[in-house]
Formats: sequence, structure tokens, C-alpha cells
Amino acid sequence: MRTLLAEEAKALLSACRIGRLGCIDNGEPYVVPINYVFTDGAIYSHSLPGRKLDALRTNPRTCLQVDDIQDDFNWRSVIAYGDFEEIRVPGDRELILNKLLSRFPSLTPVESAIVADAGAPSSIVFRIRVDRVTGVSED
Amino acid sequence: MRTLLAEEAKALLSACRIGRLGCIDNGEPYVVPINYVFTDGAIYSHSLPGRKLDALRTNPRTCLQVDDIQDDFNWRSVIAYGDFEEIRVPGDRELILNKLLSRFPSLTPVESAIVADAGAPSSIVFRIRVDRVTGVSED
Repeated sequence: MRTLLAEEAKALLSACRIGRLGCIDNGEPYVVPINYVFTDGAIYSHSLPGRKLDALRTNPRTCLQVDDIQDDFNWRSVIAYGDFEEIRVPGDRELILNKLLSRFPSLTPVESAIVADAGAPSSIVFRIRVDRVTGVSED
Repeated sequence: MRTLLAEEAKALLSACRIGRLGCIDNGEPYVVPINYVFTDGAIYSHSLPGRKLDALRTNPRTCLQVDDIQDDFNWRSVIAYGDFEEIRVPGDRELILNKLLSRFPSLTPVESAIVADAGAPSSIVFRIRVDRVTGVSED
């Protein structure tokens, strides 16, 4: 098992589409899968209101774990850490939703409605500015 | 999106082989992929010493997140919560390592050595007695 270089870790973060977001909810760890885009050193995603957002608003420290697991002997896993930040400015929300759309075209029907209504608070758009990345590889 | 019944959530826990273990490390969430077996209401796994075990020994509250993601509109995700417990009795360790072996035959060369040396402290065998399970499904 070897430690990944920062560039290797960031390459995996850029390549993946689904990650597992970890946060702390009432003193307990909480993990959920999310779709995301990693660009310019930040993770961008969106979410409907719920437990994940309640937890992140209370304790913004979070991590995103991504991996590429071929089999038990060939895999790499990366964790990116940062603080949760809500994007509230309508123009910024629209820009980020469009980034997510271009990455997840299958979401178009749902997300287009959100983009058309980018000022509405129903879908929360957020950023995690990555301040630390670690990764390991078995290959 | 609907909430899974407890039986549905446990069925996914039983079916999956890889989950993402969440724990709290120095006040930060920490997430890593693990191989595991879920049986008799508990998650069993093993690990070499390292950051994950240091964190779990300090704060034993943990969760395992598993999912089955077909695409953005067909997926289910489950989180099982419990407390980390190290299995130190050599006979119990061997029993559990054999369970893991029968589930992960590809690990045989490595794990056989561990089983042959089940009293050695190099590989830590642990259990998470699941005290809460939640799950959601989009389909």
C-alpha cells in the first residue's frame, strides 16, 4: 500500500462522479453518497433539505471519500477535507448547477427545472473548498 | 425517495461486500472503504493498525454506509450504526477471520497467513454490533 501523491489524489477526485460525504451529526459519524464536481480546488454539489444539510449547517467540517476499486488487490481511495459553504447568490447557484448539469446530463429533466428556478431555496447548492487531500493505493 | 423497511436495509447490508466506514478522528469526519461481513446483527471486519483504528479506539461510535447505485434515478443507500469493539480472544478472532475468508476467497493467500497466526496482534479483528439501521431508496 502506498500513499498517493497530491496530484494523483486530485486526479481521482476529478475523475469520480460519486463520492461518500462524511459529516458529524449529533456527535455521530454520518455518511451519504453524493454526486459532485471537483473543479478549481473545490467540490460542488447540491442537495434537498434534510439530515445531511442540518448536520453540515451545525458542524461544517466535512470530507468526501472517493475510490476506484477494481478488486481486493487493486484499488485506490482518496479523502478530501474542507468546510461546507452554502452558495446563496442566485447567479453563483445557476453557474454551479450548470456545471453539475454538464457533468450529469442524465439529471437534466430534474435539474433544468431547478436551474430555471435558480433563486428558489428548495435545492441547496454547496461548495467544499478542499484544504487537505490524502490518498492511498494498493496495486 | 422512500425510507427502506428495516428488513430491506438489512438485506442490502447482507448483500454488499464493500462499505464505507465513517468515524470521527480528532473532531473531523473520516471515511474509508472496508470489506466486511454482516451476520447475526453485527458487522465484522479486520484492519491493519493505522489511522482508522486509532480513531475508533479513541471514539468507538461508528457507522457503515453501503449502497447499490444503478444510476442517478435507481439507487438505495443504507447506514448502520454501532460501537467499535475489538475481538481479542484468539479463538474468536480465528472464527471471524474464517467468516471473512469464506466471503472473500480472493484474500486467501494473505488471510490464511493471518489465520495461521491468529494470536498475533498485527491484524485487528473487530465487530460493530448494529444498534440502528436507516435506509433510503430512489426507484
